[in-house]
Amino acid sequence: MEETRYRRGLETARKLDEENAARLDEALKGIAPDLYRYIVEFAFGDILSRPGLPVATREIVTLSALSAMGTAQPQLRVHLNAALNVGVPRAQIVEVFMQIAVYAGIPAALNALYLAKEVFAERDAKGLS
Amino acid sequence: MEETRYRRGLETARKLDEENAARLDEALKGIAPDLYRYIVEFAFGDILSRPGLPVATREIVTLSALSAMGTAQPQLRVHLNAALNVGVPRAQIVEVFMQIAVYAGIPAALNALYLAKEVFAERDAKGLS
Amino acid sequence: MEETRYRRGLETARKLDEENAARLDEALKGIAPDLYRYIVEFAFGDILSRPGLPVATREIVTLSALSAMGTAQPQLRVHLNAALNVGVPRAQIVEVFMQIAVYAGIPAALNALYLAKEVFAERDAKGLS
Amino acid sequence: MEETRYRRGLETARKLDEENAARLDEALKGIAPDLYRYIVEFAFGDILSRPGLPVATREIVTLSALSAMGTAQPQLRVHLNAALNVGVPRAQIVEVFMQIAVYAGIPAALNALYLAKEVFAERDAKGLS
Amino acid sequence: MEETRYRRGLETARKLDEENAARLDEALKGIAPDLYRYIVEFAFGDILSRPGLPVATREIVTLSALSAMGTAQPQLRVHLNAALNVGVPRAQIVEVFMQIAVYAGIPAALNALYLAKEVFAERDAKGLS
Amino acid sequence: MEETRYRRGLETARKLDEENAARLDEALKGIAPDLYRYIVEFAFGDILSRPGLPVATREIVTLSALSAMGTAQPQLRVHLNAALNVGVPRAQIVEVFMQIAVYAGIPAALNALYLAKEVFAERDAKGLS
Repeated sequence: MEETRYRRGLETARKLDEENAARLDEALKGIAPDLYRYIVEFAFGDILSRPGLPVATREIVTLSALSAMGTAQPQLRVHLNAALNVGVPRAQIVEVFMQIAVYAGIPAALNALYLAKEVFAERDAKGLS
Repeated sequence: MEETRYRRGLETARKLDEENAARLDEALKGIAPDLYRYIVEFAFGDILSRPGLPVATREIVTLSALSAMGTAQPQLRVHLNAALNVGVPRAQIVEVFMQIAVYAGIPAALNALYLAKEVFAERDAKGLS
Repeated sequence: MEETRYRRGLETARKLDEENAARLDEALKGIAPDLYRYIVEFAFGDILSRPGLPVATREIVTLSALSAMGTAQPQLRVHLNAALNVGVPRAQIVEVFMQIAVYAGIPAALNALYLAKEVFAERDAKGLS
Repeated sequence: MEETRYRRGLETARKLDEENAARLDEALKGIAPDLYRYIVEFAFGDILSRPGLPVATREIVTLSALSAMGTAQPQLRVHLNAALNVGVPRAQIVEVFMQIAVYAGIPAALNALYLAKEVFAERDAKGLS
Repeated sequence: MEETRYRRGLETARKLDEENAARLDEALKGIAPDLYRYIVEFAFGDILSRPGLPVATREIVTLSALSAMGTAQPQLRVHLNAALNVGVPRAQIVEVFMQIAVYAGIPAALNALYLAKEVFAERDAKGLS
Repeated sequence: MEETRYRRGLETARKLDEENAARLDEALKGIAPDLYRYIVEFAFGDILSRPGLPVATREIVTLSALSAMGTAQPQLRVHLNAALNVGVPRAQIVEVFMQIAVYAGIPAALNALYLAKEVFAERDAKGLS
């Protein structure tokens, strides 16, 4: 059953961003390999694989939370890519961050938008949506 | 045109939660009436009225941001009601808050869920969705 | 194996604070029962049961994090009891919170200490350490 | 010289809010008396007694910081009184909190204004400015 | 009247930091041009142009809020320049950030001061106050 | 007696990380030299020198608080070195940050672990524990 959670989590992680799933594994390998497993099992396997919300909506939830917190720019970058990979349109991402200005202040919105601009340009260069 | 923003904002505010719009007006009347106007014009009229995201998705953005921040319980209560008023199912709200555990920690998720439980009970008592 | 994680988590949760484990179950039952299971499995079963840190040190980590964040007073209360239940002396808890003043500011320290004072008094009334 | 810091700090603390200085002493007496001394010496004696900013401006700094953080409502209440005691006009406090909406979001501004409204009413009842 | 808000906002934005106003326009042009307009209208036109606080005090409010939050270094840099442009003396800015140590912790104060040191050096190189 | 606090603070600061104590002095010299003195006296002399907690535990408190806050990466780097200098094993630091995932979210844990990985590599290169 653990096996199931891990496999389901890995599948979800790869669907969101295959490259990032590998990068996270690599980054944690030398320092906290168990945490990599917990993240795959709990975050991706338990929570993000739940059927109660469409995966695109889940990415909007994550973008909203991370941009409002303002303390997780590397993870915001990951989920900008994930959101685009699962079909959230760029224009919707921009709407989300504009709305964050109301609840977390204009700097939070701007910092998220500056990062989005970078990610959009990187993806343009790779021919991605 | 100001007039337009104000009217559009008020319409959006009332669609989200008529009672709360009146309560906010009342609360700010004696202390910062101009802020009430700015909130109607900017938050509701400029941002929340934009067509780029369905209103239900906008409420999910707000619930995500406020629960992750953990510093705005009164506004989280308001938007729990607003989300339900515009048709976000209770089960989806619970999914949003469960997902917040991954990004902002389990206490943030729990405190949002405890509040949701209260709001759901209040609405049950009034026969609301 | 899931069974193992759940049982190990429940054991750890009960060792920290039996009453609170039951209260959490009760609180989430009607709204997000799966989250209760994830918390037992991931937070208590995966992380807090790891042998790499003494349980008393783990409670000091939690008290430090929650008091610095300042957004999780209900959970800070739970872990004040848990810390005392597993043998962290009251005087050490007070030292932790005084130190938080340096890193998160004096208000963060004061609000944690005020809560500690309440919890200490409640436990005095019950004849607990 | 310690004596000097303590005396200078106490003088500043009392000038800001005599009642609150006594209440803080009382609150910390049974739990962290040394912290009371450090707060008087460091916060009030070292920092808030420095001549580089007028005391009214210092209170505006504190109100701005605490309202933006949103995790220190008890201390925000104390400094609302202190600000008024040292002559910051109510209208200026309202301006400060309205401005916080831009940088920390509208909920942060609203929660500070709701508290200000309470404090203003309490002071009206006592015939204070 | 919209026209008035926009023009008033632009005038205020330029008085604070002409270069930054242009940079913000440029940065948002390709991604969220409407947000640029809202920021000019709401932040600069509605709030920062209000007569209730001297512009130098408004910059002190902003520096206090942003340094306490610790999540908006790019905006803190902008407002360090704005504060100096409207006549806040460097020594007062240093006092503000030292005071932040009391309320948001010593790291918040240090990170703001390190940034101030950079901005002061950049302005020295340009012969600015 | 001030002299005592300053000397005691400097001794503690040097025991934690001699190089960093010098760097902090250097960094603040040109901008806020009094803050350097207050930090030595209050943070290091008053709080971190108190006998109520072992110095290794104090570093665990600091690592927990700073990683949970997520707004003080430069200071987290300093205290990673300090913790290792006073004998906290690398494996325990990793445990602390993994536990932070539960209370402040997975991004907070990851960002602290990425920094730890850097610091561990820097120390490997210098032959330090």
